Amino acid sequence: MAWVVAKRAAAASSSSAMKSVSAAAAIWMRSYAKVALGTDIVSAAPNVSLQKARTWDEGVSSKFSTTPLNHIFKVENSNFHFAVFLHFQTSNLVLNVIIDLRDKKVVIFGLPGAYTGVCSNKHVPGYKENIDKFKAKGIDSVICVAVNDPYTLNAWAEKLQANNAIEFYGDFDGSFHKSLDLVTDLSSALLGTRSKRWSAYVVDGKVKALNVEEAPSDVKVSGADTILGQI
Amino acid sequence: MAWVVAKRAAAASSSSAMKSVSAAAAIWMRSYAKVALGTDIVSAAPNVSLQKARTWDEGVSSKFSTTPLNHIFKVENSNFHFAVFLHFQTSNLVLNVIIDLRDKKVVIFGLPGAYTGVCSNKHVPGYKENIDKFKAKGIDSVICVAVNDPYTLNAWAEKLQANNAIEFYGDFDGSFHKSLDLVTDLSSALLGTRSKRWSAYVVDGKVKALNVEEAPSDVKVSGADTILGQI
Repeated sequence: MAWVVAKRAAAASSSSAMKSVSAAAAIWMRSYAKVALGTDIVSAAPNVSLQKARTWDEGVSSKFSTTPLNHIFKVENSNFHFAVFLHFQTSNLVLNVIIDLRDKKVVIFGLPGAYTGVCSNKHVPGYKENIDKFKAKGIDSVICVAVNDPYTLNAWAEKLQANNAIEFYGDFDGSFHKSLDLVTDLSSALLGTRSKRWSAYVVDGKVKALNVEEAPSDVKVSGADTILGQI
Repeated sequence: MAWVVAKRAAAASSSSAMKSVSAAAAIWMRSYAKVALGTDIVSAAPNVSLQKARTWDEGVSSKFSTTPLNHIFKVENSNFHFAVFLHFQTSNLVLNVIIDLRDKKVVIFGLPGAYTGVCSNKHVPGYKENIDKFKAKGIDSVICVAVNDPYTLNAWAEKLQANNAIEFYGDFDGSFHKSLDLVTDLSSALLGTRSKRWSAYVVDGKVKALNVEEAPSDVKVSGADTILGQI
Protein backbone atom coordinates (compact mmCIF):
# COMPACT_ATOMS: atom_id res chain seq x y z
CA MET A 1 0.00 0.00 0.00
CA ALA A 2 1.36 3.31 -0.97
CA TRP A 3 1.41 6.12 1.48
CA VAL A 4 2.36 9.72 1.38
CA VAL A 5 4.27 11.75 3.87
CA ALA A 6 4.05 15.46 3.41
CA LYS A 7 6.31 17.41 5.60
CA ARG A 8 6.57 21.10 6.03
CA ALA A 9 10.29 21.11 5.77
CA ALA A 10 10.76 24.42 7.51
CA ALA A 11 9.09 22.91 10.59
CA ALA A 12 10.27 19.34 10.26
CA SER A 13 13.82 19.91 9.30
CA SER A 14 16.62 21.32 11.37
CA SER A 15 18.55 22.15 8.23
CA SER A 16 20.33 25.41 8.65
CA ALA A 17 19.87 26.00 4.93
CA MET A 18 16.13 25.92 5.39
CA LYS A 19 16.13 27.94 8.58
CA SER A 20 18.88 30.36 7.87
CA VAL A 21 17.79 32.87 10.45
CA SER A 22 20.15 31.85 13.17
CA ALA A 23 18.68 31.47 16.61
CA ALA A 24 21.69 33.35 17.81
CA ALA A 25 21.09 36.28 15.51
CA ALA A 26 20.43 39.52 17.26
CA ILE A 27 16.98 40.95 16.74
CA TRP A 28 17.21 44.66 16.22
CA MET A 29 14.58 47.22 16.89
CA ARG A 30 14.80 50.93 16.32
CA SER A 31 11.26 52.09 15.97
CA TYR A 32 9.34 55.31 16.37
CA ALA A 33 6.22 53.87 14.72
CA LYS A 34 3.51 51.44 15.74
CA VAL A 35 4.70 48.60 13.58
CA ALA A 36 7.02 46.66 15.84
CA LEU A 37 9.15 43.61 16.30
CA GLY A 38 7.02 40.57 15.64
CA THR A 39 4.28 42.46 13.85
CA ASP A 40 2.76 40.42 11.04
CA ILE A 41 2.98 43.01 8.33
CA VAL A 42 0.24 41.32 6.29
CA SER A 43 -2.24 41.21 9.15
CA ALA A 44 -1.35 44.76 10.19
CA ALA A 45 -2.47 46.08 6.81
CA PRO A 46 -5.58 44.05 6.03
CA ASN A 47 -7.03 44.36 2.52
CA VAL A 48 -4.06 46.44 1.47
CA SER A 49 -2.11 45.76 -1.68
CA LEU A 50 0.83 47.44 -3.34
CA GLN A 51 1.34 48.25 -6.99
CA LYS A 52 4.34 46.84 -8.79
CA ALA A 53 6.25 49.57 -10.60
CA ARG A 54 5.66 49.47 -14.33
CA THR A 55 5.15 51.68 -17.35
CA TRP A 56 1.72 53.05 -18.08
CA ASP A 57 1.37 50.66 -21.03
CA GLU A 58 2.23 47.73 -18.78
CA GLY A 59 -0.30 49.07 -16.30
CA VAL A 60 -2.99 49.03 -18.98
CA SER A 61 -2.06 45.55 -20.21
CA SER A 62 -2.05 44.25 -16.62
CA LYS A 63 -5.50 45.76 -16.15
CA PHE A 64 -3.99 47.86 -13.39
CA SER A 65 -3.45 44.80 -11.23
CA THR A 66 -2.19 45.14 -7.68
CA THR A 67 -0.14 42.78 -5.55
CA PRO A 68 -1.57 41.53 -2.24
CA LEU A 69 0.84 41.77 0.68
CA ASN A 70 0.86 38.02 1.27
CA HIS A 71 2.26 37.56 -2.24
CA ILE A 72 5.08 39.91 -1.37
CA PHE A 73 5.90 38.77 2.15
CA LYS A 74 4.77 35.16 2.47
CA VAL A 75 5.61 31.89 0.82
CA GLU A 76 3.98 31.43 -2.54
CA ASN A 77 3.63 28.30 -4.61
CA SER A 78 6.84 29.16 -6.40
CA ASN A 79 8.64 28.67 -3.10
CA PHE A 80 7.52 25.06 -2.79
CA HIS A 81 10.28 22.63 -3.57
CA PHE A 82 9.14 19.08 -4.03
CA ALA A 83 11.45 16.17 -3.40
CA VAL A 84 9.87 12.88 -4.43
CA PHE A 85 11.28 9.54 -3.41
CA LEU A 86 9.93 6.21 -4.49
CA HIS A 87 11.31 3.14 -2.80
CA PHE A 88 10.36 -0.27 -1.55
CA GLN A 89 9.99 -0.78 2.16
CA THR A 90 9.48 -4.44 2.96
CA SER A 91 6.55 -5.32 0.74
CA ASN A 92 5.18 -1.79 0.30
CA LEU A 93 5.87 0.81 -2.31
CA VAL A 94 6.59 4.00 -0.39
CA LEU A 95 6.22 7.44 -1.86
CA ASN A 96 7.81 10.17 0.22
CA VAL A 97 6.98 13.68 -0.78
CA ILE A 98 8.95 16.30 1.06
CA ILE A 99 7.70 19.77 0.60
CA ASP A 100 10.37 22.33 1.25
CA LEU A 101 8.24 25.22 2.38
CA ARG A 102 10.96 27.78 2.92
CA ASP A 103 10.63 30.94 4.89
CA LYS A 104 10.38 33.96 2.63
CA LYS A 105 12.91 36.57 3.57
CA VAL A 106 12.33 40.13 2.48
CA VAL A 107 14.21 43.35 3.07
CA ILE A 108 11.97 46.35 2.49
CA PHE A 109 12.76 50.00 2.70
CA GLY A 110 10.43 52.95 2.42
CA LEU A 111 11.24 56.50 1.47
CA PRO A 112 9.55 59.86 0.99
CA GLY A 113 9.42 59.86 -2.76
CA ALA A 114 10.72 59.43 -6.25
CA TYR A 115 12.91 62.22 -7.56
CA THR A 116 13.77 63.57 -4.12
CA GLY A 117 17.33 64.12 -3.00
CA VAL A 118 18.40 61.68 -0.29
CA CYS A 119 16.25 58.93 -1.81
CA SER A 120 17.93 59.28 -5.21
CA ASN A 121 21.48 59.97 -4.09
CA LYS A 122 21.90 57.75 -1.07
CA HIS A 123 19.07 55.49 0.03
CA VAL A 124 18.36 53.55 -3.17
CA PRO A 125 22.01 53.45 -4.35
CA GLY A 126 23.05 51.91 -1.01
CA TYR A 127 20.70 48.98 -1.50
CA LYS A 128 21.49 48.65 -5.19
CA GLU A 129 25.24 48.48 -4.56
CA ASN A 130 24.83 45.87 -1.83
CA ILE A 131 22.38 43.62 -3.64
CA ASP A 132 24.88 40.75 -3.88
CA LYS A 133 25.37 40.83 -0.12
CA PHE A 134 21.62 40.60 0.44
CA LYS A 135 21.37 37.67 -1.97
CA ALA A 136 24.32 35.97 -0.28
CA LYS A 137 22.41 36.16 2.99
CA GLY A 138 19.46 34.39 1.41
CA ILE A 139 17.21 37.39 0.98
CA ASP A 140 14.50 36.61 -1.59
CA SER A 141 13.51 40.18 -2.35
CA VAL A 142 14.87 43.64 -1.69
CA ILE A 143 11.93 45.97 -2.05
CA CYS A 144 11.63 49.74 -2.25
CA VAL A 145 8.23 51.22 -1.49
CA ALA A 146 7.01 54.80 -1.62
CA VAL A 147 3.80 56.79 -1.67
CA ASN A 148 3.99 57.25 -5.42
CA ASP A 149 2.04 55.87 -8.33
CA PRO A 150 3.71 52.86 -9.97
CA TYR A 151 4.46 54.68 -13.25
CA THR A 152 6.39 57.48 -11.60
CA LEU A 153 8.21 54.96 -9.45
CA ASN A 154 9.10 52.90 -12.51
CA ALA A 155 10.51 55.88 -14.37
CA TRP A 156 12.58 56.83 -11.35
CA ALA A 157 13.87 53.28 -10.87
CA GLU A 158 14.91 53.19 -14.52
CA LYS A 159 16.68 56.51 -14.17
CA LEU A 160 18.57 55.17 -11.15
CA GLN A 161 19.28 51.94 -13.05
CA ALA A 162 18.11 50.13 -9.95
CA ASN A 163 15.12 48.18 -11.25
CA ASN A 164 17.08 45.03 -11.98
CA ALA A 165 18.43 44.76 -8.45
CA ILE A 166 15.51 46.10 -6.42
CA GLU A 167 11.77 45.51 -6.72
CA PHE A 168 9.85 48.78 -6.60
CA TYR A 169 6.29 48.98 -5.37
CA GLY A 170 4.01 51.98 -5.25
CA ASP A 171 1.62 52.75 -2.41
CA PHE A 172 -0.30 55.32 -4.41
CA ASP A 173 -2.95 56.07 -1.78
CA GLY A 174 -0.63 55.60 1.20
CA SER A 175 -2.85 52.87 2.63
CA PHE A 176 0.08 50.54 3.36
CA HIS A 177 2.07 53.16 5.22
CA LYS A 178 -1.00 54.49 7.01
CA SER A 179 -1.80 50.99 8.26
CA LEU A 180 1.71 50.70 9.69
CA ASP A 181 1.69 54.26 11.04
CA LEU A 182 4.65 55.07 8.85
CA VAL A 183 3.32 58.21 7.19
CA THR A 184 4.48 61.75 7.74
CA ASP A 185 3.33 65.13 6.49
CA LEU A 186 5.93 66.50 4.10
CA SER A 187 3.82 69.36 2.76
CA SER A 188 6.57 71.77 3.77
CA ALA A 189 8.74 70.07 1.13
CA LEU A 190 5.85 70.20 -1.39
CA LEU A 191 5.27 66.45 -1.15
CA GLY A 192 2.16 66.04 1.02
CA THR A 193 1.52 62.87 2.99
CA ARG A 194 4.40 60.50 2.32
CA SER A 195 6.25 57.61 3.86
CA LYS A 196 8.77 58.06 6.63
CA ARG A 197 12.21 56.77 5.76
CA TRP A 198 12.44 53.25 7.12
CA SER A 199 13.69 49.73 6.57
CA ALA A 200 12.63 46.31 7.82
CA TYR A 201 13.72 42.72 7.65
CA VAL A 202 10.63 40.57 7.30
CA VAL A 203 10.52 36.78 7.48
CA ASP A 204 7.30 35.13 6.36
CA GLY A 205 5.51 38.38 7.06
CA LYS A 206 6.91 38.83 10.57
CA VAL A 207 8.99 41.90 11.27
CA LYS A 208 12.39 40.76 12.57
CA ALA A 209 14.12 44.15 12.42
CA LEU A 210 12.77 47.64 11.97
CA ASN A 211 14.55 50.95 11.56
CA VAL A 212 12.66 54.21 11.26
CA GLU A 213 14.48 57.51 10.81
CA GLU A 214 13.51 60.32 13.14
CA ALA A 215 13.95 62.81 10.28
CA PRO A 216 13.10 61.77 6.71
CA SER A 217 16.18 63.60 5.49
CA ASP A 218 18.40 61.21 7.45
CA VAL A 219 19.81 57.85 6.46
CA LYS A 220 21.21 57.03 9.91
CA VAL A 221 19.50 53.71 10.63
CA SER A 222 17.56 52.76 7.50
CA GLY A 223 20.42 52.24 5.05
CA ALA A 224 21.63 49.01 3.52
CA ASP A 225 24.65 48.67 5.78
CA THR A 226 22.57 48.72 8.95
CA ILE A 227 20.07 46.10 7.91
CA LEU A 228 22.77 43.86 6.44
CA GLY A 229 24.10 43.62 9.99
CA GLN A 230 20.65 42.69 11.28
CA ILE A 231 20.02 39.71 9.00
CA MET B 1 5.80 122.16 -11.99
CA ALA B 2 6.25 118.57 -12.93
CA TRP B 3 3.30 116.28 -12.98
CA VAL B 4 2.83 112.66 -13.60
CA VAL B 5 0.19 110.94 -15.62
CA ALA B 6 -0.10 107.24 -14.98
CA LYS B 7 -2.40 105.48 -17.31
CA ARG B 8 -3.52 101.91 -17.25
CA ALA B 9 -2.88 101.41 -20.89
CA ALA B 10 -5.12 98.43 -21.24
CA ALA B 11 -8.02 100.57 -20.13
CA ALA B 12 -6.98 103.84 -21.64
CA SER B 13 -5.76 102.71 -24.99
CA SER B 14 -7.70 101.29 -27.85
CA SER B 15 -4.56 99.78 -29.28
CA SER B 16 -5.30 96.40 -30.72
CA ALA B 17 -1.79 95.36 -29.76
CA MET B 18 -2.65 96.01 -26.15
CA LYS B 19 -6.10 94.50 -26.32
CA SER B 20 -5.53 91.65 -28.67
CA VAL B 21 -8.55 89.71 -27.56
CA SER B 22 -10.85 90.72 -30.34
CA ALA B 23 -14.32 91.80 -29.35
CA ALA B 24 -15.51 89.65 -32.19
CA ALA B 25 -13.77 86.55 -30.90
CA ALA B 26 -16.07 83.75 -30.01
CA ILE B 27 -16.11 82.79 -26.36
CA TRP B 28 -16.12 79.08 -26.05
CA MET B 29 -17.43 77.05 -23.22
CA ARG B 30 -17.39 73.29 -22.89
CA SER B 31 -17.59 72.59 -19.21
CA TYR B 32 -18.60 69.73 -17.00
CA ALA B 33 -17.12 71.35 -13.90
CA LYS B 34 -18.04 74.24 -11.64
CA VAL B 35 -15.38 76.59 -12.90
CA ALA B 36 -17.11 78.46 -15.68
CA LEU B 37 -16.91 81.20 -18.21
CA GLY B 38 -16.02 84.42 -16.44
CA THR B 39 -14.78 82.71 -13.29
CA ASP B 40 -11.89 84.57 -11.73
CA ILE B 41 -9.55 81.64 -11.30
CA VAL B 42 -7.57 83.42 -8.58
CA SER B 43 -10.62 84.26 -6.49
CA ALA B 44 -12.07 80.78 -7.04
CA ALA B 45 -9.04 79.21 -5.37
CA PRO B 46 -8.28 81.55 -2.47
CA ASN B 47 -5.02 81.00 -0.60
CA VAL B 48 -3.99 78.39 -3.13
CA SER B 49 -0.60 78.37 -4.76
CA LEU B 50 1.08 76.09 -7.27
CA GLN B 51 4.61 74.75 -7.23
CA LYS B 52 6.88 75.48 -10.16
CA ALA B 53 8.45 72.27 -11.48
CA ARG B 54 12.09 71.99 -10.47
CA THR B 55 14.68 69.50 -9.34
CA TRP B 56 14.86 68.55 -5.69
CA ASP B 57 18.08 70.56 -5.31
CA GLU B 58 16.36 73.59 -6.81
CA GLY B 59 13.49 72.96 -4.42
CA VAL B 60 15.88 73.05 -1.47
CA SER B 61 17.68 76.17 -2.69
CA SER B 62 14.34 77.91 -3.30
CA LYS B 63 13.32 76.98 0.25
CA PHE B 64 10.43 75.06 -1.27
CA SER B 65 8.80 78.27 -2.46
CA THR B 66 5.39 78.21 -4.08
CA THR B 67 3.82 80.51 -6.65
CA PRO B 68 0.61 82.38 -5.78
CA LEU B 69 -2.06 82.17 -8.45
CA ASN B 70 -2.10 85.92 -9.03
CA HIS B 71 1.55 85.70 -10.06
CA ILE B 72 0.63 83.11 -12.63
CA PHE B 73 -2.59 84.57 -14.00
CA LYS B 74 -2.48 88.30 -13.38
CA VAL B 75 -0.27 91.15 -14.42
CA GLU B 76 2.96 91.35 -12.52
CA ASN B 77 5.52 94.11 -12.38
CA SER B 78 7.36 92.48 -15.25
CA ASN B 79 4.37 93.25 -17.43
CA PHE B 80 4.59 96.96 -16.81
CA HIS B 81 6.02 98.84 -19.74
CA PHE B 82 7.01 102.36 -18.93
CA ALA B 83 7.11 105.05 -21.54
CA VAL B 84 8.63 108.24 -20.19
CA PHE B 85 8.34 111.53 -21.97
CA LEU B 86 9.94 114.73 -20.82
CA HIS B 87 8.94 117.88 -22.57
CA PHE B 88 8.26 121.52 -22.01
CA GLN B 89 4.69 122.71 -21.97
CA THR B 90 4.55 126.47 -21.86
CA SER B 91 6.72 127.23 -18.87
CA ASN B 92 6.47 123.85 -17.16
CA LEU B 93 8.57 120.75 -17.44
CA VAL B 94 6.15 117.92 -18.03
CA LEU B 95 6.89 114.34 -17.23
CA ASN B 96 4.46 111.90 -18.77
CA VAL B 97 4.70 108.36 -17.58
CA ILE B 98 2.54 105.92 -19.45
CA ILE B 99 2.26 102.56 -17.86
CA ASP B 100 1.37 99.85 -20.31
CA LEU B 101 -0.42 97.46 -18.00
CA ARG B 102 -1.21 94.71 -20.47
CA ASP B 103 -3.66 91.93 -19.98
CA LYS B 104 -1.93 88.70 -19.08
CA LYS B 105 -2.99 85.90 -21.35
CA VAL B 106 -2.48 82.37 -20.19
CA VAL B 107 -3.34 79.02 -21.70
CA ILE B 108 -3.41 76.33 -19.04
CA PHE B 109 -4.08 72.65 -19.39
CA GLY B 110 -4.45 70.06 -16.67
CA LEU B 111 -3.94 66.33 -16.91
CA PRO B 112 -4.14 63.20 -14.75
CA GLY B 113 -0.45 62.76 -14.20
CA ALA B 114 3.17 62.53 -15.11
CA TYR B 115 4.29 59.30 -16.75
CA THR B 116 0.78 58.30 -17.83
CA GLY B 117 -0.06 57.39 -21.40
CA VAL B 118 -2.25 59.99 -23.07
CA CYS B 119 -0.58 62.80 -21.14
CA SER B 120 2.88 61.77 -22.36
CA ASN B 121 2.02 60.73 -25.89
CA LYS B 122 -0.59 63.23 -26.94
CA HIS B 123 -1.63 66.01 -24.58
CA VAL B 124 1.75 67.60 -23.76
CA PRO B 125 3.27 67.03 -27.23
CA GLY B 126 0.31 68.80 -28.83
CA TYR B 127 0.97 71.97 -26.84
CA LYS B 128 4.74 71.70 -27.24
CA GLU B 129 4.50 71.41 -31.02
CA ASN B 130 2.17 74.39 -31.27
CA ILE B 131 4.04 76.72 -28.94
CA ASP B 132 4.93 79.14 -31.73
CA LYS B 133 1.26 79.48 -32.66
CA PHE B 134 0.39 80.32 -29.06
CA LYS B 135 3.15 82.92 -28.90
CA ALA B 136 2.02 84.37 -32.22
CA LYS B 137 -1.42 84.87 -30.70
CA GLY B 138 0.11 86.84 -27.83
CA ILE B 139 -0.13 84.17 -25.17
CA ASP B 140 2.24 84.99 -22.33
CA SER B 141 2.39 81.52 -20.79
CA VAL B 142 1.37 78.02 -21.76
CA ILE B 143 1.11 76.10 -18.52
CA CYS B 144 0.72 72.43 -17.72
CA VAL B 145 -0.58 71.56 -14.27
CA ALA B 146 -1.09 68.20 -12.60
CA VAL B 147 -1.64 66.70 -9.17
CA ASN B 148 2.02 65.74 -8.86
CA ASP B 149 4.90 66.99 -6.79
CA PRO B 150 7.11 69.51 -8.63
CA TYR B 151 10.15 67.18 -8.74
CA THR B 152 8.30 64.37 -10.48
CA LEU B 153 6.73 66.86 -12.84
CA ASN B 154 10.12 68.37 -13.63
CA ALA B 155 11.67 64.98 -14.41
CA TRP B 156 8.76 64.14 -16.68
CA ALA B 157 8.92 67.51 -18.47
CA GLU B 158 12.63 66.98 -19.08
CA LYS B 159 11.98 63.51 -20.43
CA LEU B 160 9.40 64.94 -22.82
CA GLN B 161 11.81 67.77 -23.71
CA ALA B 162 8.90 70.11 -23.16
CA ASN B 163 10.15 72.29 -20.31
CA ASN B 164 11.53 75.00 -22.56
CA ALA B 165 8.22 75.52 -24.33
CA ILE B 166 5.75 74.90 -21.54
CA GLU B 167 5.74 75.97 -17.89
CA PHE B 168 4.97 73.07 -15.59
CA TYR B 169 3.38 73.53 -12.19
CA GLY B 170 2.61 70.91 -9.58
CA ASP B 171 -0.53 70.89 -7.47
CA PHE B 172 0.88 68.38 -5.01
CA ASP B 173 -2.08 68.36 -2.63
CA GLY B 174 -4.71 68.88 -5.31
CA SER B 175 -5.96 72.07 -3.63
CA PHE B 176 -6.05 74.03 -6.90
CA HIS B 177 -8.06 71.41 -8.74
CA LYS B 178 -10.32 70.77 -5.75
CA SER B 179 -11.13 74.48 -5.55
CA LEU B 180 -12.14 74.45 -9.22
CA ASP B 181 -14.00 71.13 -8.91
CA LEU B 182 -11.66 69.62 -11.46
CA VAL B 183 -10.60 66.52 -9.56
CA THR B 184 -11.55 62.95 -10.31
CA ASP B 185 -10.92 59.64 -8.58
CA LEU B 186 -8.50 57.61 -10.70
CA SER B 187 -7.80 54.94 -8.09
CA SER B 188 -8.87 52.31 -10.60
CA ALA B 189 -5.82 53.32 -12.65
CA LEU B 190 -3.62 53.30 -9.50
CA LEU B 191 -3.39 57.08 -9.44
CA GLY B 192 -5.79 58.20 -6.70
CA THR B 193 -7.31 61.67 -6.70
CA ARG B 194 -6.05 63.49 -9.75
CA SER B 195 -6.96 66.25 -12.13
CA LYS B 196 -9.49 65.82 -14.87
CA ARG B 197 -8.12 66.48 -18.32
CA TRP B 198 -8.93 70.09 -19.17
CA SER B 199 -7.76 73.29 -20.78
CA ALA B 200 -8.59 76.94 -20.32
CA TYR B 201 -7.81 80.29 -21.84
CA VAL B 202 -7.45 82.80 -19.03
CA VAL B 203 -7.09 86.56 -19.44
CA ASP B 204 -6.06 88.50 -16.34
CA GLY B 205 -7.41 85.67 -14.24
CA LYS B 206 -10.78 85.48 -15.98
CA VAL B 207 -11.72 82.26 -17.71
CA LYS B 208 -12.49 83.05 -21.36
CA ALA B 209 -12.67 79.46 -22.61
CA LEU B 210 -12.86 76.16 -20.78
CA ASN B 211 -12.76 72.60 -22.06
CA VAL B 212 -13.11 69.64 -19.75
CA GLU B 213 -12.98 66.08 -21.06
CA GLU B 214 -15.77 63.77 -20.00
CA ALA B 215 -13.28 60.90 -19.78
CA PRO B 216 -9.69 61.57 -18.67
CA SER B 217 -8.45 59.17 -21.33
CA ASP B 218 -9.81 61.46 -24.06
CA VAL B 219 -8.23 64.43 -25.76
CA LYS B 220 -11.36 65.47 -27.64
CA VAL B 221 -11.76 69.07 -26.47
CA SER B 222 -8.72 69.88 -24.31
CA GLY B 223 -5.96 69.64 -26.90
CA ALA B 224 -3.87 72.45 -28.33
CA ASP B 225 -5.76 72.63 -31.61
CA THR B 226 -9.09 73.31 -29.94
CA ILE B 227 -7.94 76.11 -27.69
CA LEU B 228 -5.90 77.72 -30.46
CA GLY B 229 -9.22 78.22 -32.22
CA GLN B 230 -10.69 79.80 -29.09
CA ILE B 231 -8.08 82.50 -28.56
